[in-house]
Amino acid sequence: MSAPDYSKQGYKEIIVTLDGAVLTILMNRAKYRNTFTNQIWADLVHVFDLCDRDDRVHVVILTAEPTAPAYCSGAELAKGWSELWDKDAEKEGEHAHRDTGGILSMTIYRCRKITIAAVNGHAAGVGMTALQLPFDFRFAWAGAKLTFPFVRRGIVPEATSSYLLPKLLGTSRANSLLLTGSTVSPDSFYIKDLYHQILPTREAVYPAAKALADELATQTSQLSIAYAKALIQHPGESVEENHLLDSRAMKILGASPEGEEGVASFKERRAPKFPGRLSKDSSLWYPWWRRADITHRKSKL
Amino acid sequence: MSAPDYSKQGYKEIIVTLDGAVLTILMNRAKYRNTFTNQIWADLVHVFDLCDRDDRVHVVILTAEPTAPAYCSGAELAKGWSELWDKDAEKEGEHAHRDTGGILSMTIYRCRKITIAAVNGHAAGVGMTALQLPFDFRFAWAGAKLTFPFVRRGIVPEATSSYLLPKLLGTSRANSLLLTGSTVSPDSFYIKDLYHQILPTREAVYPAAKALADELATQTSQLSIAYAKALIQHPGESVEENHLLDSRAMKILGASPEGEEGVASFKERRAPKFPGRLSKDSSLWYPWWRRADITHRKSKL
Amino acid sequence: MSAPDYSKQGYKEIIVTLDGAVLTILMNRAKYRNTFTNQIWADLVHVFDLCDRDDRVHVVILTAEPTAPAYCSGAELAKGWSELWDKDAEKEGEHAHRDTGGILSMTIYRCRKITIAAVNGHAAGVGMTALQLPFDFRFAWAGAKLTFPFVRRGIVPEATSSYLLPKLLGTSRANSLLLTGSTVSPDSFYIKDLYHQILPTREAVYPAAKALADELATQTSQLSIAYAKALIQHPGESVEENHLLDSRAMKILGASPEGEEGVASFKERRAPKFPGRLSKDSSLWYPWWRRADITHRKSKL
Repeated sequence: MSAPDYSKQGYKEIIVTLDGAVLTILMNRAKYRNTFTNQIWADLVHVFDLCDRDDRVHVVILTAEPTAPAYCSGAELAKGWSELWDKDAEKEGEHAHRDTGGILSMTIYRCRKITIAAVNGHAAGVGMTALQLPFDFRFAWAGAKLTFPFVRRGIVPEATSSYLLPKLLGTSRANSLLLTGSTVSPDSFYIKDLYHQILPTREAVYPAAKALADELATQTSQLSIAYAKALIQHPGESVEENHLLDSRAMKILGASPEGEEGVASFKERRAPKFPGRLSKDSSLWYPWWRRADITHRKSKL
Repeated sequence: MSAPDYSKQGYKEIIVTLDGAVLTILMNRAKYRNTFTNQIWADLVHVFDLCDRDDRVHVVILTAEPTAPAYCSGAELAKGWSELWDKDAEKEGEHAHRDTGGILSMTIYRCRKITIAAVNGHAAGVGMTALQLPFDFRFAWAGAKLTFPFVRRGIVPEATSSYLLPKLLGTSRANSLLLTGSTVSPDSFYIKDLYHQILPTREAVYPAAKALADELATQTSQLSIAYAKALIQHPGESVEENHLLDSRAMKILGASPEGEEGVASFKERRAPKFPGRLSKDSSLWYPWWRRADITHRKSKL
Repeated sequence: MSAPDYSKQGYKEIIVTLDGAVLTILMNRAKYRNTFTNQIWADLVHVFDLCDRDDRVHVVILTAEPTAPAYCSGAELAKGWSELWDKDAEKEGEHAHRDTGGILSMTIYRCRKITIAAVNGHAAGVGMTALQLPFDFRFAWAGAKLTFPFVRRGIVPEATSSYLLPKLLGTSRANSLLLTGSTVSPDSFYIKDLYHQILPTREAVYPAAKALADELATQTSQLSIAYAKALIQHPGESVEENHLLDSRAMKILGASPEGEEGVASFKERRAPKFPGRLSKDSSLWYPWWRRADITHRKSKL
C-alpha cells in the first residue's frame, strides 16, 4: 500500500495527524460533546482500518480537545436509539442488526499497531466502550466522570464490552461497573485498573499518551507488537496450545533480521532500528486464528 | 406466575421479606453460627428459584443477623462430610455425587435479578463460596474473618468456586486464597477486589446493601439487567461472537418500549418507569446458550 | 518411585536441598547473573519433574543467592537467539521449534505440589516468565527491577506468558507489562497483584517463602492441593461443567481418609496428619483433562 495522505480522506468529524510514526486522531465534535453519530463512526472505522495497513504508523492515539465538554458523552440520542437501526437490516429480522459501536470496537481491537485512548474529558456509553476498551492503553484525566449507563437506559452493554471489560478487570469489577450504571472517577477502585496512567489535568492527558507513544515507536518492533497483541488476544486454549503458538512466533521473529537487531542493539546499548514492516515481513502463518463470520446479515451463532 | 407469598413457603431456616422490589433473605441459624445444613440449602435453592420467576422482585439480598456469631461458618460438620452424600447417589458411583453447595451456587448465579450478598459476619467454606461468589455484588464488614479452608480439611474448593473466583479476581489472587486456606480480612489485598463496599461495622452492612438495592430497583431495567448478566456470563468465545450476541440484545431491547423509556426518561431528566417484565417481555432468543446436563446422575464430562 | 537423592542427580547449575517436605532449588549461576542456558534449563526441567513424583515433597521453592546480581537476567545471549534453536528441528521447518522456556513453564505449571518463586533479585525475560508465572505463589524483593523486554528485542512474549499473565492479572495490566517492555518494581500498580508478598530486603525473601512453605507443608493435604490446582487450571467451560468436576473431586477426597482426617483434626483443634500420597492415593479419574500433543515436532494447531 502506498502511503496514504490522511488529510485527503474526506473525514468530516475527525482530524488526523501523522507525526513520525505516531498517528493522532482528534474527535472534532466538541460543540456536540463529541456524541457518537454515524458520521464519526464511519470516519473512525475508516482511519483505524487504514493505519492498520500503513507501515509508517507504529502507534495510534485517539483523543479529544481538552477544552471539549466531554471526551465522548455517548450516542447521539436526538432520535432515540432508532438512529442505530439499519433500515435494510430491519427487514431481515432482529438477528440481522449489527451494532455500530461493536464494529468500531472490533476494528480498533484488531489493529496491529499500538493503540492508545487519551481520555481527557467525561465519557459515557460508547465513549466508555468502543472508544476505550479495545485499546492497548488508556490514559485518563482524574476529574473525568465515567459511566456505563446501559442498564439505566433500557438497553445492554454494547460494543463488545461484555467480552472486553471482564477480561480487562475481572468480573468483580466489571459487574460493579456494568450492572450499576453508576458514575465513577478514574481513581475509583472499581475502574482504576483500566488505566495505564491517570493525570491531574485535562491538558496533561494527551502529552502523557504522546510521550509513551514516542518511546514505544522508537524502542519497540512493529512486528513484535503485532505478534504479541495476537498472542494475548488469541492465546490458545491451554498452556500446551499456547506453547505451540508462541514457539512458532519466537522462531519466525527470532530467526529473522528483527530478532537479530533486537539482540545487536541490546548488546551495543543503543536504540534499535527494527527493519521489519507488517506489509512485507509478516509470516503467512499470521493470523493463525479463524473469525466468526459477521458480515452476512444472516450469519448468527 | 401469580405473585407468591414468601411467608407461606414453609421455610424453616430463612426469613424472607419483600419490600417493594427488594427481597431480603435472612439466614436464621444464628445460634448455630449459620452453619450450612441440608435444610437451609433446600430453603435457599427454593427461594432463589422462586424470586427469579417473580416479576415483582428486582433485587435479592442475602444476609444474616448482625448479632450472629457468623454470616456462615461453613458446612455443619457434626457427622463429618458424610452429611453431604446422597445415599441413593452412593450406589451409582463417585460420578453420581452432586455437591449441594454447587447446586445452590448455580441457582444464585442463574438468577436473572440483581443479587447482593451482605456479609455482616465471619465466613468460611460454603459461606465464602456459594453464599458469596455467585452474587453480582458483595458487601462486607471490615472485621470479618474470611477463609476458604478446603486444602486444610482434606477436600477441594467446592460450589463452583474454582470456576468463579479466578474469573472474579484473576488467578494470582485466587491462588493466594484457595491454595493457602488462610484467614484474611476484607481489606486484605488478596481479597478486597471481591467487595463492592466494605463497611466499618456489622450493623452498617445490610443498610448499605439495601441502599444500592433500592437505587437499582428504581433506576434500572429488569430486562436490561437480565440480558446484561447473561452477556457477562456467556460472552461469546471471541469479540466477533460477542458482537453477534450484543447486537441482537441491543436490537431486541432498544427497539422495544424498554429502550424507548430509557431514552425518554433520560431526555426528560426524570427517573425511568420501565414497563418490561421478564415473564412476558423476554425474547424467545433468551437464553441463547446451552447448558451441560447435570440432572441425571450418570451425566458426566 | 523410591525416594530420589537430589544430591546425586548430576545437576550442574542448581543446588537442591530437601528439608522435611520442602524442596529448595537454588540457581547457582550468580557470576553470570543467573542467565538462562540450556544447562540450567535441563536441570530445572528434571528436578521439577522429579519432585512432582516424589511423595516426600509437598512444597517446592525456586530461588537465587540473595547476593547474586540478579534472580535471573534472561536468556544467555552471547550467541544471540540462535542458542535457542534445535538444529534437528531446524530441518523440519518453523513449526517444529519448541521454546525451551515454554517447556520449563509447563513442567512447573503441571507440578502437583505447591510451587513458590522467591524472587530475591532483578528479573528479566525468561526470569519473569518461566521462572515466575507458572508458580502458585511469588515472593519478591521490593527493590527488584522487573521487565518483560520482548517487544524491545524483536521477539514475542514467550514461555506461555501470553496465556498465563492475562489470567493472573487481567489483560489491562498484562498489556501494560507485555506491550511496553518497561521496567517496573514489584510495588508498581502494574504488577503488584502478581506477588503474594513483597519484602524490603533481598535477604528477607527466601525466609518469608520458606515460612509459608513450612506452614502449608504441615497444614494442607497433598491430595487436596493437587486436586485444587487441577480444578483452577482446568475449570470446566461453564459453571455446570465445573460443578460436575468439583462434585466428583469432593466425593473422592471427602469420602476418603484424607477428608476424614480433615474433619477430625478440625474438631480436635489439632494440626492434621494427612495420610494421602499422590503416588498411591490419587483416583484413576485424575487427571480428567486431555493435553494437546506437543511432543512430536510435526504436531501443530
